[in-house]
Amino acid sequence: MTRNVTIGAAQMGPIQLVDSRADVVERLLALLRSGAEAGCDLVVFPELTLTTFFPRWWVDDLAEADHFYETEMPGPETRPLFDEARRLGVGFHLGYAELTPDGHRYNTAILVERDGTVVGRYRKVHLPGHEDHEPWRAFQHLERYYFEPGDGFDVHGAFGGVVGMAICNDRRWPETYRILGLQGCELALIGYNTPIHYAPDPGQDRLQGFHNGLVLQSGAYQNGMWVVGVAKAGHEEGCDLLGETSIIAPSGEVRAMATTVGDELVVAEADLDLCADFKETLFDFDRYRRPEVYGRITGQRGPEVPDHVRAALGAPPEGGPR
Amino acid sequence: MTRNVTIGAAQMGPIQLVDSRADVVERLLALLRSGAEAGCDLVVFPELTLTTFFPRWWVDDLAEADHFYETEMPGPETRPLFDEARRLGVGFHLGYAELTPDGHRYNTAILVERDGTVVGRYRKVHLPGHEDHEPWRAFQHLERYYFEPGDGFDVHGAFGGVVGMAICNDRRWPETYRILGLQGCELALIGYNTPIHYAPDPGQDRLQGFHNGLVLQSGAYQNGMWVVGVAKAGHEEGCDLLGETSIIAPSGEVRAMATTVGDELVVAEADLDLCADFKETLFDFDRYRRPEVYGRITGQRGPEVPDHVRAALGAPPEGGPR
Repeated sequence: MTRNVTIGAAQMGPIQLVDSRADVVERLLALLRSGAEAGCDLVVFPELTLTTFFPRWWVDDLAEADHFYETEMPGPETRPLFDEARRLGVGFHLGYAELTPDGHRYNTAILVERDGTVVGRYRKVHLPGHEDHEPWRAFQHLERYYFEPGDGFDVHGAFGGVVGMAICNDRRWPETYRILGLQGCELALIGYNTPIHYAPDPGQDRLQGFHNGLVLQSGAYQNGMWVVGVAKAGHEEGCDLLGETSIIAPSGEVRAMATTVGDELVVAEADLDLCADFKETLFDFDRYRRPEVYGRITGQRGPEVPDHVRAALGAPPEGGPR
Repeated sequence: MTRNVTIGAAQMGPIQLVDSRADVVERLLALLRSGAEAGCDLVVFPELTLTTFFPRWWVDDLAEADHFYETEMPGPETRPLFDEARRLGVGFHLGYAELTPDGHRYNTAILVERDGTVVGRYRKVHLPGHEDHEPWRAFQHLERYYFEPGDGFDVHGAFGGVVGMAICNDRRWPETYRILGLQGCELALIGYNTPIHYAPDPGQDRLQGFHNGLVLQSGAYQNGMWVVGVAKAGHEEGCDLLGETSIIAPSGEVRAMATTVGDELVVAEADLDLCADFKETLFDFDRYRRPEVYGRITGQRGPEVPDHVRAALGAPPEGGPR
């Protein structure tokens, strides 16, 4: 059995409000077919692939946004993608807004094998942004209004290796990669919609590309896994989204990267056996990790400055620097 | 009270076996005085500053290596450093091999305030390398023979902020920065001795500088803290050590970096209030972390590939890919 997986990271250009699901699925099919021509085993689409990034608008009633969500997968509009994947023998990863039969809403991604069967589903754990309408912002980032958080990171046996998924903001948290790495993950698939403008601290705007690379690359290296970061990119409904779709090796090196902010397929062959170069040496977890020292990571949510430190800084026990 | 700390990252060139403690302390004093002239509040020396990196040699009896360890701090040979620090009003951070009165050996660092008092001590948690003599290597990396592991990461109120320490290999583990960050750390001091040659996988040799930057910068960004990485560098007893001593901002950007592999002071002013740009926005831990999902990080040491994943890959429950 080969341990080489040819991956197509299928960056999507902007999706406007006027674009129909059928329009979008046509673009996905074109990228899937390009992937097949390039010999891909797997084509990776971004977060919330099927619509514009709708958490940028407030609605008084969530039901007004129901049309942005999928109630079945595949559904009538997405079934052509599954059929074509099976016909071509190319698997895919797809992010979309999920509305369950009992009314729960998630920011979800699925992993589909080369025979068109869904082999894994992931619901976003780290929801960024805010819960309430904040009219002072140039645009909203209401993921915490539109979605409930998922409950964990799993891995799946697929494409000859151990495959995990995460979504967008998850990639900024080292815990994401570590939980996947602790399940032997060799390939992490991560779609994102990342506005260049970050309203709470616009000083970070110029750093969006740097930060994207930094977290994807360190997550790959520190866990000895391939990481595929896939953007929805470009100028969407007045908002500029980061591109820089990348395929990153277990060394942390960028193996291939997009050079546009439109629909663009970035292809690389990933040798999953390269993971062992790191997992079995410097990052031999069994030998070198010290979980008995890591208690704060699971034992507390926010920062806790010890009282003796506050005292040394002349700060009261409650308050002061954090 | 100002929240600006002027930091001198005091890279050390090589220390050979023939160099006496007095020779080394003279070099440290010169760097400390340069720091004072540059207006530094704090001068940061590297890991195991006082001797050559002795874990590169095997000895049959640890007692043969006793002369590499400090049994008191300050001791007769290091007291001039404390006296000069007090006289100049410049604090320092110093790594050294520690031998306790009851015979325990640690890879240790201390933090000394501007009045010459020791305000914090740290013992290395993540010990890399090996326990036994491995003659096939060009040189040994016997930290797991020469040292016992430390039991945690603390923070200290010093220099007007919350200061933490880590040592060398600790910097490759995201848990290190996170445990400091969960205590409100604003400034992490990390000395290192990093051979360019990594015997278990020489393919990593060319990446030593890249990996050093990647882990220091991602640790800084993901926790919104200043990170100071300080090398013992250059050609030491036939072994090439990485330089690239750096002062890194909470944005993850390199604020200043060494350009030699000798004794070199890298100076930057660190505004501790910049930490809040990240700690109170994107990385507001209280709001965004999901510790209820992080159980594997403290619950297991090594990787555990789920049985259903092994089954999907045709691997037996015990063995197969990891």
